[in-house]
Amino acid sequence: MSSIDLPLTRDSIVAAHALIKPHIHSTPVLTNTTLNNLASTPQSSEALKETSWEGQEPARPKITLFFKAENFQKIGAFKVRGAFHAVLRLVEERGIDHVRRQGVVTHSSGNHAQALALAARTFSIPAHIVMPSISTPSKIEGTRAQGAILHFSGSTATEREAVVADVIKDTGATLIPPYDHPHIMLGQGTMGKEIDEEVAALLQDRPELSIHHAMAAQESEKGSDGLDALIAPCGGGGMLSGNAIYFHNTATRVFGAEPSFEGADDARRGVAAGERITSVKTLTIADGLRTPLGLHTWKIITDKDYVAGLYAVTEQNIKDALQLVLERMKCFVEPSAVVGLATVLYNEDFRKMVEKEAGEEGWNIGLVFSGGNTTVEAIVKMFGNVGKKEAEREQGVVGADGKKLAENVAG
Amino acid sequence: MSSIDLPLTRDSIVAAHALIKPHIHSTPVLTNTTLNNLASTPQSSEALKETSWEGQEPARPKITLFFKAENFQKIGAFKVRGAFHAVLRLVEERGIDHVRRQGVVTHSSGNHAQALALAARTFSIPAHIVMPSISTPSKIEGTRAQGAILHFSGSTATEREAVVADVIKDTGATLIPPYDHPHIMLGQGTMGKEIDEEVAALLQDRPELSIHHAMAAQESEKGSDGLDALIAPCGGGGMLSGNAIYFHNTATRVFGAEPSFEGADDARRGVAAGERITSVKTLTIADGLRTPLGLHTWKIITDKDYVAGLYAVTEQNIKDALQLVLERMKCFVEPSAVVGLATVLYNEDFRKMVEKEAGEEGWNIGLVFSGGNTTVEAIVKMFGNVGKKEAEREQGVVGADGKKLAENVAG
Repeated sequence: MSSIDLPLTRDSIVAAHALIKPHIHSTPVLTNTTLNNLASTPQSSEALKETSWEGQEPARPKITLFFKAENFQKIGAFKVRGAFHAVLRLVEERGIDHVRRQGVVTHSSGNHAQALALAARTFSIPAHIVMPSISTPSKIEGTRAQGAILHFSGSTATEREAVVADVIKDTGATLIPPYDHPHIMLGQGTMGKEIDEEVAALLQDRPELSIHHAMAAQESEKGSDGLDALIAPCGGGGMLSGNAIYFHNTATRVFGAEPSFEGADDARRGVAAGERITSVKTLTIADGLRTPLGLHTWKIITDKDYVAGLYAVTEQNIKDALQLVLERMKCFVEPSAVVGLATVLYNEDFRKMVEKEAGEEGWNIGLVFSGGNTTVEAIVKMFGNVGKKEAEREQGVVGADGKKLAENVAG
Repeated sequence: MSSIDLPLTRDSIVAAHALIKPHIHSTPVLTNTTLNNLASTPQSSEALKETSWEGQEPARPKITLFFKAENFQKIGAFKVRGAFHAVLRLVEERGIDHVRRQGVVTHSSGNHAQALALAARTFSIPAHIVMPSISTPSKIEGTRAQGAILHFSGSTATEREAVVADVIKDTGATLIPPYDHPHIMLGQGTMGKEIDEEVAALLQDRPELSIHHAMAAQESEKGSDGLDALIAPCGGGGMLSGNAIYFHNTATRVFGAEPSFEGADDARRGVAAGERITSVKTLTIADGLRTPLGLHTWKIITDKDYVAGLYAVTEQNIKDALQLVLERMKCFVEPSAVVGLATVLYNEDFRKMVEKEAGEEGWNIGLVFSGGNTTVEAIVKMFGNVGKKEAEREQGVVGADGKKLAENVAG
C-alpha cells in the first residue's frame, strides 16, 4: 500500500472523519452510575492480596466514566474506521477503476478482515482475505458473508505472508495492513474526535454527569468541560496511536491498556525498555490484543507527549470487568473491549496516578468498547466453572455447598 | 392501593408520560439489518421438523424490526415506568407527607421490587418489599441496594400475602401490585408512546429503513410511515395491556407473545377458551413471564379490539433468539425480553398471518426488549452444554467431534 502523504495530525483525522462518516455509525457514548461508584470506591485490602500492591493503602481516585460503544459499530468493531479510510485513500490515489481491477488484500482472521471486506464491497472492490485454515468456522463464515474472496494458509506469520505475496503476484491487489499504516491509524483516530465532541455535548446538556460538577458549582467556575483522560486498549496500537494523535497537545491525556498474560503487555514492556518488542506469543482471552506494536504505531506510542502511560491487567481483571459490563451496562462486548475498564477498576498504579494528578477534583475518563465480536460459546467457556458447578448440582453430583456428593462412596 | 379514577385511554398514557418523564430514561429504538434479513427469509423445512408446521410450505413474510431497548432503562427493566406512575399518583391523591409516613409495599423478587424501591427512594418514601426467603442473593442484594426494607416470607402466594398483610397492619403502607392495576398498566403504556414517536422520527430521517420504502417510492406514495404492528411479551399483562391501550384504534396492531413451556401461555389459552386462567406453574427460562394475567389486564387482553392475537414459542426458540440478540445486536437482555423476536422468527402461525395481512408491502414491527436483568451465571447455565463440551475437549475427555475419547477404554 503506497500512500498519499498525510501528516499524523489532528487535522488529518478531521479530514479522515469527513471522508468515512457516510459509511460508519456514529456510535453512542454511554455512562453508568454503578460503574462510576465502583471506580471511585477504594479497593478492599482483600482484593489486593496476592497482587504487587498487597498491604498497601488502596488508592482513592474520583472518576466519572464515558464509554464509546464501538461494539455497536458496523461489523461490531471499530476496525471499519481504518478500513474505510485506507480504501478511500487508495481510491483517491489510484482511481476507482484501477482499484476495482486489482483489489485489496489482507491477512487477518479477525475484525479487520470483516471490516476490509465490508469497505471493499461497498465500492465493488474485490477483497482477498488470507486466513489460517484453522480459523473458527464462525469467523470464516462471517468474512465470507461480507463477500470476501478467502485464501487459506498455515498459521505462522511466514506462511500467511507467502500466501499474501502469491495473491499480490496473481492479482496486483494492494495490501491493507490491520494496524501498522498511517491511513489505518488516522482512521481509528476518528473515534477520538467523536467521543471528544459527544462528551462535550453530553456535559452541555447534563453538566451534573461531570466529576467536576459539584466542585465547579462550589467555586462558581464555568467553562468548557470534557475528558481529562482517555484509555484505549492496545494490541497492534492502531486505535491507541490514532487517539493519541487526535488528543495530542490538548487537555485530554491518552493512556494505553494491555493484558499482562504471557507477555501480552509488549507495548508497556517495550516502552519501559526503550526498544520495540517485535514478537509476542500469548493466548490471553483478550484475543484482539495478542499482536505486538508495528513500526508506525511504536513511534507514536513510545512518545510520552502522545501516550502518557501504559498499564497492564490480569486475565481475572478482564473477566471481572467483562461481567460488570454485561450485567450492569447490558452491553455485549468482547474481552479486548474491557481492558481499559479493568485498568481503571483494578490497577492500583493507574488509580494512584489518578488520585495524585486529579486530586479532589477527579477525572472524567473516556473508555473504548472496541468491539462486541464474541460468542455465547466463548462466554460459556470463559465463565464455565460457575455453570459447570450449577449443572453438577442439578444432576446431584455436588451439593449446594459445591462438595462432591459421591465423595464418601469413592473415598 | 385505592385510586384516582383514570380512564384506560391513550390520553391517560400521555398524561402518565408527562408525569414520569423526568424520572425515567427515554430508551433508544434499535434496528438491525441481519435480523431484518432473517425475519424476511423463509424458515427451512429442516427447521420445521418436529413442529406442528412440519411438511408445510414455510411462510414468506416481509419484515423490518424496531427494538425498544428497555434493557437500558433504569434498574435494567421497563418496570420503573409503572412503579413511578403508581407512586406519583398515590402522592397526588394522599399527599407526600401521608405517603412518606406510611410507605408502600409489594411482594416480588424481581424487577418490580427494584423498580418500586427506586421510585419510593426518589421521593424519600419507605418501600417494604416482601421476598421469598429462598430468593437468590443477587436479587436480595439488588433490592437492598435500592434502599428498600426487606421482609422475608415463604414461597407460596398465601405465605407472601400474609406477610404483606402484616406489613400493612403495622405501617399503613399502600400495596403497589406488580401489574394488575390501572396506574401500572398506564405507566407501562408510556413505552408505546415513545416507540411510536421514535420510529416516526427515525423514518423521517432515514425513510429507507421502512419496509414500505421501496414500494412507496415505486408508487410515489407519500405520507406518514410507522409501525404496522407491535409485539409485547406477556406475563401478568401490564406491558401488553398498556401498549394495547396506547395503540387502540390506530394503524398499529398489538400482539402478545408468551413461552409455551409448562403452560406459561396462559393468556393465549385463556383468551382461546374465553376464560381467564388464574394459576400457572411453570419454570420457563423466561422467568419474568411465569405469572398469569390479572383481572384488569385480562379485560384488555381478551378484547380483540385491543390485542389482535397471542402467540407462544418454545424454550429452544427463546434460546435461539437470545443468542442472536447477544451476538448480533450486542445487547445483553434477559430471556423474557426475546419472546417477541422468537415469535417473529420461528412461529409460523404468526409469520403466515403477516404474509397474508401485509402481502408484498410487508410490516414494520416493533418489539420490546423488556429488560436486561440476567447474569453471566444464568447464561452459562442456559447454554452450558456448548461450554461443557468445549471444556471436556480441552481436558481431552472428548475429541473435536464430541465423541468420548475414553469410550474404548470404558466400553
